[in-house]
Order: sequence, then C-alpha cells, then structure tokens
Amino acid sequence: MREVETVSSCCRIALLGFGTVGSAVARRLTAPDSGVSPHVLLTHIFDRRAVEKRAAAPGGGSLTWTSSVDEVLESDVDVIVEAIGGVEPAADWIRAALLAGKSVVTANKQVVARQGASLLKLAARQGRQLRFEAAVGGAMPIVRAIGEGLAGDRITRLVAILNGTTNAVLSRMEATGCTLDAALRDARDRGYAEADPSADLGGEDARAKLAILCALAFGLRVDPSQIAVRSSAAITAVDFARARQHGATIRQIAHAEYDRAASALSAWVAPVEVALTSIFAQTQGAQNAVLIRGTYSGEIGIFGAGAGGDATAVAVLGDIAAIARDRAAIVPPPVQTSDFRILTSNFELPTSVFAEAS
Amino acid sequence: MREVETVSSCCRIALLGFGTVGSAVARRLTAPDSGVSPHVLLTHIFDRRAVEKRAAAPGGGSLTWTSSVDEVLESDVDVIVEAIGGVEPAADWIRAALLAGKSVVTANKQVVARQGASLLKLAARQGRQLRFEAAVGGAMPIVRAIGEGLAGDRITRLVAILNGTTNAVLSRMEATGCTLDAALRDARDRGYAEADPSADLGGEDARAKLAILCALAFGLRVDPSQIAVRSSAAITAVDFARARQHGATIRQIAHAEYDRAASALSAWVAPVEVALTSIFAQTQGAQNAVLIRGTYSGEIGIFGAGAGGDATAVAVLGDIAAIARDRAAIVPPPVQTSDFRILTSNFELPTSVFAEAS
Repeated sequence: MREVETVSSCCRIALLGFGTVGSAVARRLTAPDSGVSPHVLLTHIFDRRAVEKRAAAPGGGSLTWTSSVDEVLESDVDVIVEAIGGVEPAADWIRAALLAGKSVVTANKQVVARQGASLLKLAARQGRQLRFEAAVGGAMPIVRAIGEGLAGDRITRLVAILNGTTNAVLSRMEATGCTLDAALRDARDRGYAEADPSADLGGEDARAKLAILCALAFGLRVDPSQIAVRSSAAITAVDFARARQHGATIRQIAHAEYDRAASALSAWVAPVEVALTSIFAQTQGAQNAVLIRGTYSGEIGIFGAGAGGDATAVAVLGDIAAIARDRAAIVPPPVQTSDFRILTSNFELPTSVFAEAS
Repeated sequence: MREVETVSSCCRIALLGFGTVGSAVARRLTAPDSGVSPHVLLTHIFDRRAVEKRAAAPGGGSLTWTSSVDEVLESDVDVIVEAIGGVEPAADWIRAALLAGKSVVTANKQVVARQGASLLKLAARQGRQLRFEAAVGGAMPIVRAIGEGLAGDRITRLVAILNGTTNAVLSRMEATGCTLDAALRDARDRGYAEADPSADLGGEDARAKLAILCALAFGLRVDPSQIAVRSSAAITAVDFARARQHGATIRQIAHAEYDRAASALSAWVAPVEVALTSIFAQTQGAQNAVLIRGTYSGEIGIFGAGAGGDATAVAVLGDIAAIARDRAAIVPPPVQTSDFRILTSNFELPTSVFAEAS
C-alpha cells in the first residue's frame, strides 16, 4: 500500500489463521521492502498450531504468536484479519473482534455471504469497519467496483467466473483434452485446488460469492442456498467437443439478473457454453472475470487473478490500508431486502452475453 | 447510488457547467426513479448561459439557476460538482470551493493532472474531499481500482486505451476500411467527438489521464507535457492493412512502466499495433480498457464505457455517494515524488503485453 502523509499513528494488526492467505499477508507485512506502509505493524498471529507454524515461519522479534484467540481480542491491536475460513468459529470471532472495538478485514466468503448484513450492522454500531474485498475475486477489486465505483449506477446483471479452481480445471481440459481428474491433479500440483474440490466444482464456493455480489449490486439478501447450482464434476471431453462445434467452450459461470419492476431474481452457478470470443473463454487458469451491466454505464468488465495467497493478500492489504488511512471511516450497512422472488433456473445465458462479452 | 441506513442529513449539491456531463448528472439527480438516494439533493446549477439553458432543461421548482459562481460558493451546498472542463477558471473555482468549505467532485482530467496534488493537499487541510473518479475512464472505476483496490500491491505497469474518441475512430476504420475523416464524422454523429478532435487524436487527452494514473499507481508527479505523444491523425487504411498482416490492428495506447530500482519511467501515448486477440483489439467504439500489472497480483484488467454523459455521470454520482455517506472521510494527499527520470520513448509495446492481454 502506498504511503500517505497524514497517518496519525501506527496501525497494529493481528492475523487469525496462518494458512495460504494468512501467511502471504504476514510475508507482505513483515518484508522490509514490499510496499506496505511502515505505519502498519503486524503484532499478533493466532493459529491453532502456533508453536509448530512459528518454527517454520520467518523470524520477527516483536511478533506475538498465540493459540489463544482471547489473547488477540484482549490485545491493543486496531485491526484483526480473519483468514481461518469456514463459518464457525470465524463468524463468532469476527463478532467478538468488533465487540472488542477492533476493525475487521476478512477473506471469508461463507461468513460474509451468510452473516454479512448483521456483521456490517454491528460494525457500524461499534463505529468500526468490516471490510471484505478479499472474499470475492482475489486481487480483482470487484467489491469496491460494485459497492463504490458503480454505486452511481443501477446494476441489472452480473455474469462472472468466480471460482479459480474450477476455471483452472475446465480451461486445462479445453487446452489439453485431458480428463477432469487429470486436470484436477494438475490444479492441485499448482496449488489451486483443495484436497476436497467438491465445494469448487459443485458451485458452493461461487454461489457464496455471488450472494455477496447480489447484496452489493441489487440490495438483496440472498441466502447462498437459494442460488441454484449444477455441478461441473461430470463435464467430459465430449462436452468440450460439442461446445467447440458451436464456436464455444465451457466455463463455470455465476449469473445473476434482477428485474426490479417484478422483484424477480434469476441466480445460478453452472458449467455452460461461452463463446470462444468472449471474455469468459479467454479467462484461463485460476483467473476470475466479472461482467457488470449497469443501466447507465452499459457493460463494465473486470478480470484478473482470482485465487492464490499473494493475490488475495493484495485485497487484504488494500482493506488494511483503507482502515489505517481513515480509522473513523463510515462503512454503512447496505439496505437489503428479502422481498423478492427467485426464478426457477434454466441455467441458460442470455444470448446477448455472447455478443457483448467479446 | 444505493441507499444507506445512516444518512445523517440531506446532502446538497451544486453543479458547475451544464454541458454533456453536467446535464447528465442533473438528469439523474432530479429524476424520480433513477436510483439516486433521496438524501442527495441538487439545489444549484451554475452555467454561463444559465437563462438560456434553464429554458431548455427539464423543470425543477426548488432549483436555483445562476451565472454567478459566487452565488454557488456562498450558498449552503455541501458538494460542488465541477463539470466545466478546461484548466482555468475550473482550477480556481475548485480551490475557491474547497476554501469555502465545500467538498468537490470533478470530471476534469486537465486540472487533476496538473494541479491534483496541491488541490488534494488543500482539501485535506480543509477537512474536505476532492474526488475525481470521472476524470479517467468514464464509468470504469479505474481511479478507485488503482488508488484503493490495488493499494495493497506494488504496481509496475499500466497499458491502456484512455481516449474514447480516438478509439471510436480507429475501431471504425478497422471495421469499415473508411478514411480517418469519415470515421471522425461518424464519431461526431454519435456524439463521441468534439468539433476540434485534435486533443483526442493528438494524445493530449490521454496523456493527462495517464499522468493521473502515474500519480496514483507509482506515486510520481508527472507533468502531462513530460509524456511523449505521437498523433493518431495520420493513420490510414494502409497502416491497418500492414497491421492485419501481423495478426494485429491499431489502437491509441497509453503506456507507463516504472522501474523503481532505477527511478526510471517510460510513459507515452501513441497509435500502435495490438494483437487481434488482445483486450485492446476487442475494445470497440468509445470504450476504454486498462491492464494493470502488479508485483503481487499479476495482470488485472478493467474495460467499459469510457466516454459519454451517462457513463461519466455514473462516476460523478459514485463520488457524490461516497461523500454523502461519510462527510468526514479522510482522503489523504498521496506522497508524490518528482525525483525520477523519463526515458526516451520508442513507442513500442513490450511483446509480453500481446501474450498477457489476450
């Protein structure tokens, strides 16, 4: 993060979780020349296996490692970065952090998708901030783009690739003609895929992210389970061959379209054909891409690294910078309604996406 | 802009200039159902020809039209939107507005490129905000993406299409084989081109925008005149034919690359060949596109409507929403240095752009 002139005092950071994202954040915060402001200081790392991980981590004299989350909550840190993942205990700890007067930065899409509205309300009541750029799209600043940059538009549709693992698998199948299992092994070798990829291929991961974007873009309180999914796990070379005959390939697409007049939301995640000339077909490996249609701005696209520790750490550090710059910034909870219908999914992209996306 | 729960009071807006951008902003602010918060109220419009324009504008009872800028400065408005363009008197009026305790939203790339640093300092001293998302890239939230979303990265390169008019002309020449003059007439008919397109084709417009992005991305105080330009005005069908033989087409590209170790900036605007598979070749009409390379996030791309009243108004309204949401938000002036060398331009894209941009 670039330095600013008016940093009043040091901003002390604690990290919950020292996995892929947590360790990447720690690396950036402790490296001498990684572009992070010297006014931002990592002081605490919580991990269940703190002793073990500390031994394997690069040194840092003044850093407190702990396996007691209470020690972090009772400390003098200003910002707690939640990078443990999963719904519980992460959501409880975020709540406890806000109640303890800390601001929170999280990369946790499941918590934000399910409890974002109540946590944002709590943060506002506490005069603290909850920021979650890292929860969707890795380094792509999609949360800010929709929540702030396009706040002056009326967004009507989102079409996106939101799961890096599935995209790495499908784009490799397309490129090499290999089986899904072989592509999955390759993704694991590159560090893109979890041991259990079912949440990625099945669509659970993407629909949590899509629920977050629906809240930001449409003001709708969508439970991830309301979003229809079709798994990508059964896609074969035959599907790719058929797609190619249509001048297309296959990607896991997350799609949401809101008809305000009818209060009707169409939202689904599924492997579908996308035109070879589209931005989605050109999205390779663990990249993500989002096309946002606004009533006044037309189609805005964003693409980039959607996964990986370093890319996700960029989003976390941007949120830390925003808090360090303005500790009293007001991040008002969005007005959200649950008063809408979800249409039955046909998992079909409107043909216009093909034309506009190229 | 989407409503928020905690708007303390009404945010009163004045508009300076009722041209393409100003009238689009006014239309959104006064329409009953355009998605703008009811807490944001347009109260004053300044235009040199206020009487004449008022007669032609849609009615609005409580709106004060004036051709006295002092009347606006002395009013009780909270935010002044500067949409008159040009360096003077716009810069003077922005300064006067900040001194009068108003926050300012501007679409003026020339003022921000030349005087952004001093105006941002003044705004911070006054405890007010100067926001300028609309100065670069129309509706694309590129100012926020670089200044905030990617603040956690160390940006090393920007490659972009930043001038909608020139892009409309070049993409039409490519599509129809027509002359530049014919393409320019078409762009004028569509409302993309000024009567005098020399600042667009010549590169003046794009280099002001590139100077702003260099300040945000690299922390460099670049005077637009330091950025080398080559005009697009002499491009002919022969150039397009040659490009096609290389699997390429021609676009006006703004390019900036900063070598921090050597404190050396390469920055230029010129019509160059771009691969047909690249995001730039796919940028049609008045669209803009930006590829941002970060040390940690790799390549992030943004594209969308780069010109036009409605698209630019989206950026202006997003900035107004940010101020209305948090009147006391701290927008610290960036630390900028003039201590760098500008390399002599060879107007050549690194070949890697071709590979990565696709």
